[in-house]
Amino acid sequence: MIRVLLVHDVRILRCGLAALVGSEPDMETEAVSGKEATRSARALRADVCVADADVTGRLPLHELAGPARAPHDPPGSGREVPRRLLVLVSQHCPGALRRALDAGARGFVCKDALPEQLVTGIRRVAAGERFVDNALAGTVLRASEVPLSARELTVLSAAAEGAGITEIARRLGLSAGTVRNYMSAITRKTGARNRVDAIRISQGAGWL
Amino acid sequence: MIRVLLVHDVRILRCGLAALVGSEPDMETEAVSGKEATRSARALRADVCVADADVTGRLPLHELAGPARAPHDPPGSGREVPRRLLVLVSQHCPGALRRALDAGARGFVCKDALPEQLVTGIRRVAAGERFVDNALAGTVLRASEVPLSARELTVLSAAAEGAGITEIARRLGLSAGTVRNYMSAITRKTGARNRVDAIRISQGAGWL
Repeated sequence: MIRVLLVHDVRILRCGLAALVGSEPDMETEAVSGKEATRSARALRADVCVADADVTGRLPLHELAGPARAPHDPPGSGREVPRRLLVLVSQHCPGALRRALDAGARGFVCKDALPEQLVTGIRRVAAGERFVDNALAGTVLRASEVPLSARELTVLSAAAEGAGITEIARRLGLSAGTVRNYMSAITRKTGARNRVDAIRISQGAGWL
Repeated sequence: MIRVLLVHDVRILRCGLAALVGSEPDMETEAVSGKEATRSARALRADVCVADADVTGRLPLHELAGPARAPHDPPGSGREVPRRLLVLVSQHCPGALRRALDAGARGFVCKDALPEQLVTGIRRVAAGERFVDNALAGTVLRASEVPLSARELTVLSAAAEGAGITEIARRLGLSAGTVRNYMSAITRKTGARNRVDAIRISQGAGWL
């Protein structure tokens, strides 16, 4: 059996994904919100974690891609197995794909894929392979052209949601000076005039 | 059998909802995007249409709540039956609930509901009753306090997405002058200084 952890912030939608995946004879599922997933990332037993890129944009993704307690092992056994991350990405969001790639995601399935494509991806990733949905070929190419690092994208996402320097620093556990340095680098790299312009350029290009 | 039409713009998510609902012994499902749903609203046979409020914000909702060809009738039979609309709404979006209510929706289920709640809602709405999820009681109260009409909310949503007067007029099939009148009314009713301020106020209050 492949244990699949489904991560989406809207409960009825993650339950839907679980119904879809759970109807496969070789898969068992659990569905949690993004917050629950990162809070207890190590404790949740799963071979593959499937997360919506809209959610993962606000999460410390590497936690989801990190080691987990071995499925079927009791708590405290100390044994850990690699957990593989598969993300659901829109074709129009190379920035989200880039962030997931940098965080160690092994599978990429288009949000407009048919269910068969998702379960194929889960099986391949569970077997230790990498998997990229054909529909995302162009998005992968554009992801390699995103001029911002995963960290810079996270800072800019927070800024785009209206958070100020202090709020961003608090959320990401950084100093205000460091956030200001990130913002300067972002403005320079995107060729923007200022922060608002950097957000506009990055949203237009699908990086955010 | 209750024929359920599921409307969501992200294919893998609407397929998930269909898997969830379709596992009920008394329901059969079809899943389409918002665009497909309104393009062929009358042709799609369904007793209940379940739509995500995020999608319906951009749709002529009354089409989904309007009459449909009777299920199991051949095309061109001319017989039409009422199709009932059930929307999935976030607790924090009284504006979306208000728009759906004005368009004739009969059921309201919280996006954070458990699957059982959704299928209960579908059965009740299919039976001709109204259904409001308990979790949405407060949202219903706040929806009655939204100072903007469904049409004004649609205009303001388009403006919040960055559309100018001309673009909004084209999208909604209105004259530019009419859109300007709507924008003035919106600014006045929200007590805003200008259009950007009206968007900020309305987003803060959950009307958009």
